[in-house]
Amino acid sequence: MKRSQFSSKRRKPAFQRRTASGAPPGMLCSDPGAHPTSMRVMAYGPGDLIEQPIGRADELRAIMGKYPVLWLDVAGLRDASTIGRIGEIFKLHSLALEDVVNVHQRPKVDEYGNCQFIVARMAPLHDGEATEQMSIFLGSNFVVTFQEALGDCLEPVRNRIRADKGQIRHAGCDHLAYAILDAIVDAYFPLIEGYGEKLDDIEDQAVERPQRRLLLDIYTIRRKILMLRRAMWPLREAVGHLQRQESPNVTQETRIFLRDLSDHTVQIIDMLETYRDLSLGLMDVYISSVGNRMNEIMKLLTIITTVFIPLTFLAGLYGMNYHTDVSAWNMPELTWKYGYLMCLCLMLFIALGQLWLFWKKGWFTNTWSAAKDGDRAETDAAEKTP
Amino acid sequence: MKRSQFSSKRRKPAFQRRTASGAPPGMLCSDPGAHPTSMRVMAYGPGDLIEQPIGRADELRAIMGKYPVLWLDVAGLRDASTIGRIGEIFKLHSLALEDVVNVHQRPKVDEYGNCQFIVARMAPLHDGEATEQMSIFLGSNFVVTFQEALGDCLEPVRNRIRADKGQIRHAGCDHLAYAILDAIVDAYFPLIEGYGEKLDDIEDQAVERPQRRLLLDIYTIRRKILMLRRAMWPLREAVGHLQRQESPNVTQETRIFLRDLSDHTVQIIDMLETYRDLSLGLMDVYISSVGNRMNEIMKLLTIITTVFIPLTFLAGLYGMNYHTDVSAWNMPELTWKYGYLMCLCLMLFIALGQLWLFWKKGWFTNTWSAAKDGDRAETDAAEKTP
Amino acid sequence: MKRSQFSSKRRKPAFQRRTASGAPPGMLCSDPGAHPTSMRVMAYGPGDLIEQPIGRADELRAIMGKYPVLWLDVAGLRDASTIGRIGEIFKLHSLALEDVVNVHQRPKVDEYGNCQFIVARMAPLHDGEATEQMSIFLGSNFVVTFQEALGDCLEPVRNRIRADKGQIRHAGCDHLAYAILDAIVDAYFPLIEGYGEKLDDIEDQAVERPQRRLLLDIYTIRRKILMLRRAMWPLREAVGHLQRQESPNVTQETRIFLRDLSDHTVQIIDMLETYRDLSLGLMDVYISSVGNRMNEIMKLLTIITTVFIPLTFLAGLYGMNYHTDVSAWNMPELTWKYGYLMCLCLMLFIALGQLWLFWKKGWFTNTWSAAKDGDRAETDAAEKTP
Amino acid sequence: MKRSQFSSKRRKPAFQRRTASGAPPGMLCSDPGAHPTSMRVMAYGPGDLIEQPIGRADELRAIMGKYPVLWLDVAGLRDASTIGRIGEIFKLHSLALEDVVNVHQRPKVDEYGNCQFIVARMAPLHDGEATEQMSIFLGSNFVVTFQEALGDCLEPVRNRIRADKGQIRHAGCDHLAYAILDAIVDAYFPLIEGYGEKLDDIEDQAVERPQRRLLLDIYTIRRKILMLRRAMWPLREAVGHLQRQESPNVTQETRIFLRDLSDHTVQIIDMLETYRDLSLGLMDVYISSVGNRMNEIMKLLTIITTVFIPLTFLAGLYGMNYHTDVSAWNMPELTWKYGYLMCLCLMLFIALGQLWLFWKKGWFTNTWSAAKDGDRAETDAAEKTP
Amino acid sequence: MKRSQFSSKRRKPAFQRRTASGAPPGMLCSDPGAHPTSMRVMAYGPGDLIEQPIGRADELRAIMGKYPVLWLDVAGLRDASTIGRIGEIFKLHSLALEDVVNVHQRPKVDEYGNCQFIVARMAPLHDGEATEQMSIFLGSNFVVTFQEALGDCLEPVRNRIRADKGQIRHAGCDHLAYAILDAIVDAYFPLIEGYGEKLDDIEDQAVERPQRRLLLDIYTIRRKILMLRRAMWPLREAVGHLQRQESPNVTQETRIFLRDLSDHTVQIIDMLETYRDLSLGLMDVYISSVGNRMNEIMKLLTIITTVFIPLTFLAGLYGMNYHTDVSAWNMPELTWKYGYLMCLCLMLFIALGQLWLFWKKGWFTNTWSAAKDGDRAETDAAEKTP
Repeated sequence: MKRSQFSSKRRKPAFQRRTASGAPPGMLCSDPGAHPTSMRVMAYGPGDLIEQPIGRADELRAIMGKYPVLWLDVAGLRDASTIGRIGEIFKLHSLALEDVVNVHQRPKVDEYGNCQFIVARMAPLHDGEATEQMSIFLGSNFVVTFQEALGDCLEPVRNRIRADKGQIRHAGCDHLAYAILDAIVDAYFPLIEGYGEKLDDIEDQAVERPQRRLLLDIYTIRRKILMLRRAMWPLREAVGHLQRQESPNVTQETRIFLRDLSDHTVQIIDMLETYRDLSLGLMDVYISSVGNRMNEIMKLLTIITTVFIPLTFLAGLYGMNYHTDVSAWNMPELTWKYGYLMCLCLMLFIALGQLWLFWKKGWFTNTWSAAKDGDRAETDAAEKTP
Repeated sequence: MKRSQFSSKRRKPAFQRRTASGAPPGMLCSDPGAHPTSMRVMAYGPGDLIEQPIGRADELRAIMGKYPVLWLDVAGLRDASTIGRIGEIFKLHSLALEDVVNVHQRPKVDEYGNCQFIVARMAPLHDGEATEQMSIFLGSNFVVTFQEALGDCLEPVRNRIRADKGQIRHAGCDHLAYAILDAIVDAYFPLIEGYGEKLDDIEDQAVERPQRRLLLDIYTIRRKILMLRRAMWPLREAVGHLQRQESPNVTQETRIFLRDLSDHTVQIIDMLETYRDLSLGLMDVYISSVGNRMNEIMKLLTIITTVFIPLTFLAGLYGMNYHTDVSAWNMPELTWKYGYLMCLCLMLFIALGQLWLFWKKGWFTNTWSAAKDGDRAETDAAEKTP
Repeated sequence: MKRSQFSSKRRKPAFQRRTASGAPPGMLCSDPGAHPTSMRVMAYGPGDLIEQPIGRADELRAIMGKYPVLWLDVAGLRDASTIGRIGEIFKLHSLALEDVVNVHQRPKVDEYGNCQFIVARMAPLHDGEATEQMSIFLGSNFVVTFQEALGDCLEPVRNRIRADKGQIRHAGCDHLAYAILDAIVDAYFPLIEGYGEKLDDIEDQAVERPQRRLLLDIYTIRRKILMLRRAMWPLREAVGHLQRQESPNVTQETRIFLRDLSDHTVQIIDMLETYRDLSLGLMDVYISSVGNRMNEIMKLLTIITTVFIPLTFLAGLYGMNYHTDVSAWNMPELTWKYGYLMCLCLMLFIALGQLWLFWKKGWFTNTWSAAKDGDRAETDAAEKTP
Repeated sequence: MKRSQFSSKRRKPAFQRRTASGAPPGMLCSDPGAHPTSMRVMAYGPGDLIEQPIGRADELRAIMGKYPVLWLDVAGLRDASTIGRIGEIFKLHSLALEDVVNVHQRPKVDEYGNCQFIVARMAPLHDGEATEQMSIFLGSNFVVTFQEALGDCLEPVRNRIRADKGQIRHAGCDHLAYAILDAIVDAYFPLIEGYGEKLDDIEDQAVERPQRRLLLDIYTIRRKILMLRRAMWPLREAVGHLQRQESPNVTQETRIFLRDLSDHTVQIIDMLETYRDLSLGLMDVYISSVGNRMNEIMKLLTIITTVFIPLTFLAGLYGMNYHTDVSAWNMPELTWKYGYLMCLCLMLFIALGQLWLFWKKGWFTNTWSAAKDGDRAETDAAEKTP
Repeated sequence: MKRSQFSSKRRKPAFQRRTASGAPPGMLCSDPGAHPTSMRVMAYGPGDLIEQPIGRADELRAIMGKYPVLWLDVAGLRDASTIGRIGEIFKLHSLALEDVVNVHQRPKVDEYGNCQFIVARMAPLHDGEATEQMSIFLGSNFVVTFQEALGDCLEPVRNRIRADKGQIRHAGCDHLAYAILDAIVDAYFPLIEGYGEKLDDIEDQAVERPQRRLLLDIYTIRRKILMLRRAMWPLREAVGHLQRQESPNVTQETRIFLRDLSDHTVQIIDMLETYRDLSLGLMDVYISSVGNRMNEIMKLLTIITTVFIPLTFLAGLYGMNYHTDVSAWNMPELTWKYGYLMCLCLMLFIALGQLWLFWKKGWFTNTWSAAKDGDRAETDAAEKTP
């Protein structure tokens, strides 16, 4: 079930319209590659609760109106006719249903006469996947949710309904819609905290060992944060809109909970912006580290080359074949007694002189012990700061 | 019909005013290089439909007012007098007509007494071309559209009218104008999805093989996205304006469709912004990859140079011509029995020592197998992440 | 008359206050380096027109009030007393007159009891010069314009008045003010289109031949665009303000023209922003191209160095003077029959081996034919795209 | 007690939700790793004051209502039942209490019927730690504060109450809440001034000695500034909200103090933005300095290599073993009387020629004395500036 | 009196709170390092004027109320008790007085019952210093100004009062406050123009001679511009607030002057933003220039190295000691008659071939004459542009 986020072949395209371009607006064209449709209904009041799978949409008519809250949960969007049938039963607008099967909507709240149509995007269950669209219709006595596939983050809500925990069984449809949105938003936190930890790791490595894969790691996190921002910014607006607008479907009590939810979305956006800023900073650190690395390589090359080149020249000089016997001016050093020793001493002197010069310019410090120095200096600074 | 987007000679200038500077405002000066003008009319009601080409503008008078909806579709803007004549027949304002022939308007909605003047820009039919201006006059019983050339993205709308599919034949002029705008916006989706796929490709290559043409590819996508943003941001405003303003020409029913259309424009802007951000990130990745590449080249140069330079020096040293017969101090090694072998061993020792040092600093890992390591590490990380 | 934009000595400073700091507000201090003042008057109604130069300001009293529209055009701001006299005749506020001679105002519209004071900035007639301030006083029956020097972009307006073309002779002062502003805005288009063409040129060169002067070209365009933005953003606000405010001097008819003018300013701003974005992108492309260039230089250096260094070492090795006659261990190869040939073969093998390795890593492709490959690949891509 | 900000192991995660995902909203789940809970109460009026630790929450009932102001200060959030009990006693909303124990809230002000719920974040007592959440409930006759651990920046407030200094004893609960917020904001100033000094240090070093640890220092300051911005921007909004909203709990007199406090938060934000901008600029300076450093290394390498390579070639040339006895064309120089001297002179000439060329191109100036030159030039410039 | 802006030791910290943290709000704690306090009073009406230094605050009571306008000018803030006394005499609010001695306030306008409290920041008299706080209390018949030290930019205002120039003696306190603010704003112009000239200089040098100190120059200008922006943005708001708010202290006449002043602040902000953008662009140019420089160094290194390395190899080859007498296969060239000449010719051929290749790739053009080419090309372009 796990997918690598780097294999572009298997990657789900980030945006795709499933309705054929040019179809009349409001026509339902389901994606043949979508998951098969299954339905589950929970209907409850303060006293009683039924929970059952539904085979055909028309079975709903038997339950409708008998419980204060009816939650129809549709997973998988392949069966357009069933979705259309649900639309007829609950009187959902055709444009809204078109948005349900076009699973790349931005989060939003639209008013349609009898009901609110809320689009949210669920955090991916597995890192590296795209966000999943959750469409919620909030009516006076029903909540209909559509999700792309089975498996979601709403199990805690269902458990609370089953166990009659908290006030959920005693509240209306608006509270259920709030609880669903709250569960969706809550599911973002561990994901984003994971990015934070990954950024910490990258930070530790960026200076010590600026390897090539760090570049990709930073870029990947940036891309994922971008994806989550795209899901979260409009959700914040949508929740704020739901909280403020005058609608009989949303009670005053629920508005306080929605304000709290709105705070949570702002908190997530805050985290995302922070991590985005940090990832940009890390990119700078990485690029600089690579530059530093290059600097050290160049230094080493320069030290060794410039130390040996004059020596090699000297050696070459005394390798010339001028005939010492023809003229006393022709390389008399070659015939001196200590000529070779003098030559060696000269070479040693040149080499040491150069090394001393480099040492004075502080090249060695940086090259070999920069990291440890840096850490030590930092620790010192930290201890001196009050 | 295909044009390369890099041949600046053939590229259509992005902005150009066709009216001679200084002409009185509202005067029609058609561009002599514009496409020849042709006209087509569709007039329909719930029951009947006529569709026919029009030779002279005055032929319109025979049809006007006989059908609930009259759609005059003008393609090609070369014939200023015909356009002027149409303006007279439908009582269009001269400033609006001037904007029709100046085909570099930003999308907008202007109110002129009897009609709305809407400017939109159509996505190019072929990648690499500029957007095309579509000017729409929406009156109480007519829609007049002007486009730059024959060939557009409105065929699905015409087919829906012909086949009496959906509610288009039963609705008024405002619905037709909406349908035209919707078709224009829909045509952007495949274009932008194409950019997304191209960015995915570039991402795969940027790290593995950072070739020079990637730079151009990224820049070209940035430029195209800029062009589309310029077309889409004001269109969003224009659609929002159309939806909100109090005008008898736009019914309440159509406003709901316009809200849906507005969502689509926001979705496109969202995609464009995302791809813009990604392309900026890719530029960073590309530049870093080039830096990494340079790093590896430098490493190789440094390894080979620093390994061989001391050896070459040694070889040069024993190539010196000091006379060994003059003095026992002059290069006695040359006359030792195992002198040569000792020299070779020394060289081997120096070379291996250096290589060991480089291996310890981790240079070899990065140089030869960074890419595979990176991928493997990433895959591991992906598998470990829950 | 042409000036290079790089000679800072001759460049006109972008900002300069001519009033001595500390002078009382509203006092006229003309700049002694300003152009000499000359005046011209056009007075007209639907039927008649006079156009004549004016020597002394008081000559105006003879014409004032006799025509529906009186346009006094003052060029050159050296003569403060004349300007003050004009102020008295038309009852212009002293703060506004101070702004007239301080020619570095931002475009704006100020209300002063009897008249509107409009500041606009004219596009430079010659590329590389600064924008020129145009101050317009719009009264109920007069328009007074002040410009820095003779020579402007208003000749088309004057010609329209002379030829009685369009509605200008039949409209009031507000239409004249609009026509002047429209001519000013129109004059920006060719200038900005020139930048677009220059950016296209730069783009073509940035990848092929990233020469040093491109850097300056990009920077210069950025600076000029910055200058024009500074002139155009506030002008847009000013025109919008003029259009919306309730003033008896501006008729409803003229407001429609001002809306059109406002669209033009937005279009210019749009172009400027686009070119600004493109110039930033080109800077990235340029910097990357320089990096690529460096990469290729490094590759060449590395290939030649690493191929020859081992060979040179080998040659040096066999240039050592170990005495082959002392010991059989001392370089016996030198006395072998095919020793030299073997040595040559070894060298050839090492060189070819290295070249093969580089070829396998794809270094040669990039170094010599990257540009052509890039183009070809791009063309292919363009042809494959539908 | 001091912690290095670089040891990611010991670093407190920046964001963490303590409530198990899926718990019903408003349920208190304290973090088992939180500090143990302790309580302290100060109750005072103009005349009298009691200050005492509280063991059990119910002891509060004896004091409540007997003094104009009752300040309950809770430190440590481990004991959820005690916190719940306090909530019952003061009738605090369960959603607010949930925010109290989830210590990663953004600063905000929420209205809950009888009281305001204010969240602020305290500056870390020790550099390198995270900000600490301070939750304040402001009722008509009580102030309840919750902080994460013992030890805060509120001691000056307590001392003012004890010493009856200023008007605090004579004012109501709103003034106490203001005083607490003011103390929290004041505690940020020394922290941020410390960053300013550190940036000054870094600036001095970035040009002179661009060491690797500077990179980390700049990045760390950026991260800390980001953290403080996250605490301060919403606090500004919250204080502004508190100042403007119509609430009986906040008197007109206190609103003037809150306006002053709001000014302080704006001042802090101003400082943070300034330091953020400067740190970005310093990153550029650092990267450029590293580039300059590389430039100098390259120059040195180039000078030495290009000076010696021709000489070494010449030496090698005359080291060739062409037999001078076979032909007069074979290296006759070797047998000339002054051949060796001529060769040495040629070498000297080549070397000096190259050095002269480099000197003319100004390489030496930059390489060895750039820093001192730079300083001197700057000082000169500063002295010449009026 | 001049200070270098690079000596961080002597630099005045940009932000510093002088009140001990935790002091009750509104308590005056003067900074012991502040300048000694001196007072001067000017009181005038249309007819008469007195101007005198004041020793003790209570001397003011004798003058108060006798003149339409009383201007008390306090320089130096060391004497807290005197300042407190002035506060009592003029009934100034204690929070405002606290802001007077805390000299790091942002510009603002606060309403306090009887008077407006205006904070502005004066441009530094000497480049490299920080801005100085000017606090102005505007009452119905008094203006009290506090500045940090003697010596300011208000002398022109005082001279206008003394000389009865303009309308200042005939207007009220509000006009005096306006005149003071106008003088403060005017003093920014020469400072900012100086930055513009410096940026022009830097631009000229950045391409020709990208020296290390340019980096610092650019950074320093950026920092100074940041400082001035911090002073000017809020001042603009404050002036706008003063102009718009309904206060009996500010007459309608003065509001027109304040609008003019507001235009000036916008003009300064405009200049600052422009120079900020330019300085960012120059940083890019500088970094690119350094990259170009490196490119040229690398080219030179590569040309010389790659030309000589094969030659040196050849020389080494024929320096090998293979025994030509042992075998005819061992380096027979050494015994050929024209062997040496052939070898020299081969070397010449290789060298020339390589140089020709580099010349064809255009390396020489760029390396030696890029600057002149660039200039010439630019001049050509400028001449060709119409």
